[in-house]
Amino acid sequence: MTPGPGVHRTLLPKGFSASGVNCGVRRYRPDIGLLISDVPSVAAGVFTLNQCKAAPVLFCQKILPADNIFAILTNSGQANAATGTEGVERNLMMIDATAKALNCQREQVLVASTGVIGEQLHTDKILPSIPELVDRANDAAESFALAILTTDLVPKTITTSLNLSSGPIRITGISKGSGMIHPNMATMLGYILTDAKINKEYAHKVLKTATDLSFNMISVDGDSSTNDCCFIMANGASGVELKTAEDFAAFEKAVNEISIFLAKSIAADGEGATKLIEVTVKGSDDLEMARKGARGVTLSPLIKTAIHGEDPNWGRILARLGAEQVPGEQLAKMTLTMQGVKIFENGQPLTFSKPDLKALLKQSNVFIEVDLFSGTQTATAWGCDLSKKYVEINTEYS
Amino acid sequence: MTPGPGVHRTLLPKGFSASGVNCGVRRYRPDIGLLISDVPSVAAGVFTLNQCKAAPVLFCQKILPADNIFAILTNSGQANAATGTEGVERNLMMIDATAKALNCQREQVLVASTGVIGEQLHTDKILPSIPELVDRANDAAESFALAILTTDLVPKTITTSLNLSSGPIRITGISKGSGMIHPNMATMLGYILTDAKINKEYAHKVLKTATDLSFNMISVDGDSSTNDCCFIMANGASGVELKTAEDFAAFEKAVNEISIFLAKSIAADGEGATKLIEVTVKGSDDLEMARKGARGVTLSPLIKTAIHGEDPNWGRILARLGAEQVPGEQLAKMTLTMQGVKIFENGQPLTFSKPDLKALLKQSNVFIEVDLFSGTQTATAWGCDLSKKYVEINTEYS
Repeated sequence: MTPGPGVHRTLLPKGFSASGVNCGVRRYRPDIGLLISDVPSVAAGVFTLNQCKAAPVLFCQKILPADNIFAILTNSGQANAATGTEGVERNLMMIDATAKALNCQREQVLVASTGVIGEQLHTDKILPSIPELVDRANDAAESFALAILTTDLVPKTITTSLNLSSGPIRITGISKGSGMIHPNMATMLGYILTDAKINKEYAHKVLKTATDLSFNMISVDGDSSTNDCCFIMANGASGVELKTAEDFAAFEKAVNEISIFLAKSIAADGEGATKLIEVTVKGSDDLEMARKGARGVTLSPLIKTAIHGEDPNWGRILARLGAEQVPGEQLAKMTLTMQGVKIFENGQPLTFSKPDLKALLKQSNVFIEVDLFSGTQTATAWGCDLSKKYVEINTEYS
Repeated sequence: MTPGPGVHRTLLPKGFSASGVNCGVRRYRPDIGLLISDVPSVAAGVFTLNQCKAAPVLFCQKILPADNIFAILTNSGQANAATGTEGVERNLMMIDATAKALNCQREQVLVASTGVIGEQLHTDKILPSIPELVDRANDAAESFALAILTTDLVPKTITTSLNLSSGPIRITGISKGSGMIHPNMATMLGYILTDAKINKEYAHKVLKTATDLSFNMISVDGDSSTNDCCFIMANGASGVELKTAEDFAAFEKAVNEISIFLAKSIAADGEGATKLIEVTVKGSDDLEMARKGARGVTLSPLIKTAIHGEDPNWGRILARLGAEQVPGEQLAKMTLTMQGVKIFENGQPLTFSKPDLKALLKQSNVFIEVDLFSGTQTATAWGCDLSKKYVEINTEYS
């Protein structure tokens, strides 16, 4: 796999093109992007569980999964959430303009928005720019990946090729999200494109599994957005179908890996973050509990600040696992390691060299591993440290 | 009511005395405190739901409620959590020394600890200081209130007198907790003392109700400690029994108010906090949902940083309520006010003066009110803003 960004280009799968331009909602940066499939494409989506859903989320939820989608439009700077009926209308105006430019139907265009909640879309700026978006589309992901960013420091793209039994396919992933971090600039967005030939039910299943392992296991600040969504589009342009068990396994593994790569990129790019934290809870008798425990550790401001300070503050990890209701009898026999150093075992703290562990915590990737010795379930979650920069960015918005 | 601290003394109820000394665990500050009842006292407690419970918590949970308690010992600086069997033994050593000094049984002494998790208690320093604690006890709460602090900036005490149908009683409250804020210095502790004559079942019921309205509705950083506990002791030394319905109502109201005062003091003293945030969700058809919604808003780092920046960032409040699963149809008809300014109504953002609201947010108390127009349930939660100082304190521990 070739992770982006860099001087290289992230090539899209066959039959896809992408673009991004500045329409004037933001001062200079590209603020509107388009992904296009030359042919009607299978598409599926997973969406925020927030009860306050943005207009574009409600629109896409109604349509997906589908097998006749031509494009995904995305604007950044305005979330079109908590905008009432006018927000719904302006969302449709944006979609209709895209459908017109692509010469297709309203129901063949998907849409996502990210930015300030509660502001009406600047359709006066967005609508006139849509034909330009269509004109500028090319075979690389970069322009789109840049246009969808909010407080992210880097665009997030990755692409891979697989040789399946009937031929080669490509899968490309693009995401944005610096956590749900800026008080006005929210949202995690993910896009996975492939030229493999699959049906919409399978697309949805693969996407659901991949997001549960990846985007649903990251957190920067514990707030879940009104606009979160992740899409998969499979246009079949390679002509290659998945046929053998190996084909399916290889495809699913690649989508999972791409999703995890994109998710980790989001956590590492968390506002003010200096370290990526990876927490694995294994040996659990309950997958949901393992997930909850691992996520809980990545959510704790106490653990996040301790890691920012490179402080081997392991007691807080145990406390958080207990707060997440990992059963007491499992905590009593668990082992805890940080950066590979075993710290706690059989209900007792171990003797270890604090200076040595402090030195290991200077690395930009911090690994925390918990083994509960109670079963075979494992979950991994990713987060980032909490720095003064986070507070600065989120305090000094106005 | 006379809230502490100040130059005045917080008088204890009849038959109670208190003390605090430095035993050498911390460099200068008092680090061990004792509350004593002259006569065997009714006592009840509520404890952390964390599955990783400190040794003192496990000890008290076994004993309470009870009607023959003489004292509550509390040490600060070390939590005696995640300390294994040796921690259990050291906890008993501390209790036995206190029982000996007070000439009572082990089961007549309660204990609480707060501080670093995973360190064994310095019993070599604590045990020799216990007789001094007994000798120094006097009728004011201050010395004890100081001895139990960790990263708190101010001690938290309050006292009130009630004239019940059969005579006067006094109720005194003491707490500590700067949230569960410092990576090593955790814990919320609460103590309510009264000379009223009540039984242990009633004591437990009153305490449970009060903590649900107060301590369980505050949050500074969302981490719940291994050592949280709140005690009530009622020694009957006033000779006054609760007899009439008015007596019970007045007593319960006073305990609730004292608990809320103490809880708000903790939230306002959250590490790095400059503002107390009060969030009320009313008009709910589900008390648990109202509580969850109100608490969710106080937990959101995005809302906390926005308020720190005096930024009227209301979209994030709506998003958080949705993330807490307040039903979408209720969000669609809710009203939202900040500092009394109505911002959102009937699914639509309202026009309001941002500069005026920004000016109102300069106040040190910030009020957020949500009316869901769906029922009669109301819940209030308290929290604080999130500043760079919080990160500084928690990062720079080592």
